[in-house]
Amino acid sequence: MRSNGGDNNRSPSSQPRFHSTVAEHKLRRFNSLILLFRLASFSFSLSSSIFVLTNTRGSDSPHWYHYETFRFVLAANAIVAVYSLFEMGASVWEISRGATLFPEVLQVWFDFGHDQVFAYLLLSASAAGTSMARTLREMDTCTASNTFCVQSDIAIALGYAGFLFLGFTSLLTGFRVVCFIINGSRFHI
Amino acid sequence: MRSNGGDNNRSPSSQPRFHSTVAEHKLRRFNSLILLFRLASFSFSLSSSIFVLTNTRGSDSPHWYHYETFRFVLAANAIVAVYSLFEMGASVWEISRGATLFPEVLQVWFDFGHDQVFAYLLLSASAAGTSMARTLREMDTCTASNTFCVQSDIAIALGYAGFLFLGFTSLLTGFRVVCFIINGSRFHI
Repeated sequence: MRSNGGDNNRSPSSQPRFHSTVAEHKLRRFNSLILLFRLASFSFSLSSSIFVLTNTRGSDSPHWYHYETFRFVLAANAIVAVYSLFEMGASVWEISRGATLFPEVLQVWFDFGHDQVFAYLLLSASAAGTSMARTLREMDTCTASNTFCVQSDIAIALGYAGFLFLGFTSLLTGFRVVCFIINGSRFHI
Repeated sequence: MRSNGGDNNRSPSSQPRFHSTVAEHKLRRFNSLILLFRLASFSFSLSSSIFVLTNTRGSDSPHWYHYETFRFVLAANAIVAVYSLFEMGASVWEISRGATLFPEVLQVWFDFGHDQVFAYLLLSASAAGTSMARTLREMDTCTASNTFCVQSDIAIALGYAGFLFLGFTSLLTGFRVVCFIINGSRFHI
């Protein structure tokens, strides 16, 4: 049983510690959300890369490598997968140790800047891929080898999903940048 | 960060007026820069739309309308041109009257949100257009009608230029949002 009087004689000096514990708890939850989004973004872009890479059925079928656009789709998804993996490592490091991998000011701007640029990259690759896939349907490539086209469509759709989660992450890291500018630390208000 | 009257030598009444005049001057310069970027973005996307629209040479030549991707390029550029025109009006209003067209909180978020979304839209249209233009070169369309391909390339390049200036504008309006969150007004520090 808890005594009521025990809480009242808390000294003022313990107040900031209490506040900082709340802020730390909030930050940990916020970072976990970022980690979750990065995991989703990583999974989608990795599976998109694999779907493009394995998109060939022997020598008589079309090969993804002969289409410049699909090479671009593969490159963009692979870059995002590698970047997400790295950022997941940095995120886990931050959650477990309570400090950022790089100095704090560098970390928040690095995250936000790369999220923005790679989101643009992945979206443009997916848009180019969509245009290519529709063109292939109009030509006779898809009637000759339908599985090639279906697999390309799946790869592109997975790329869009990866973009979506990267976009969400970029909103969150953008919020971190704003918090950093306001408070001088990534702990939010 | 606002100073709370630590400067004792200045009379309290002249301090806010002096500060506000400097801030107003800075804000006016900042808004003029946004207006300039919007003008560039408008010019590029409008000329891109015109280049796509006029891309036909009689009945034996290919027509832009038959390519889904070029219709998307036209739509994205036209949307950005109309939006930029509207925002230029709002910007001129703000510079001349010293107040935003919509309530301030709505205006800063409206500008930033639309800049972001339309930048993504225009980039994806341009990327899809690039992929289409390259495919046309691989097929026999370009050898039969080279001017069609050249004009498409120019239209797509103009779209990229429009995207670039829209991206710059989105950085500036993003800065305005941060200032608004920090200060509660769009006047920057």
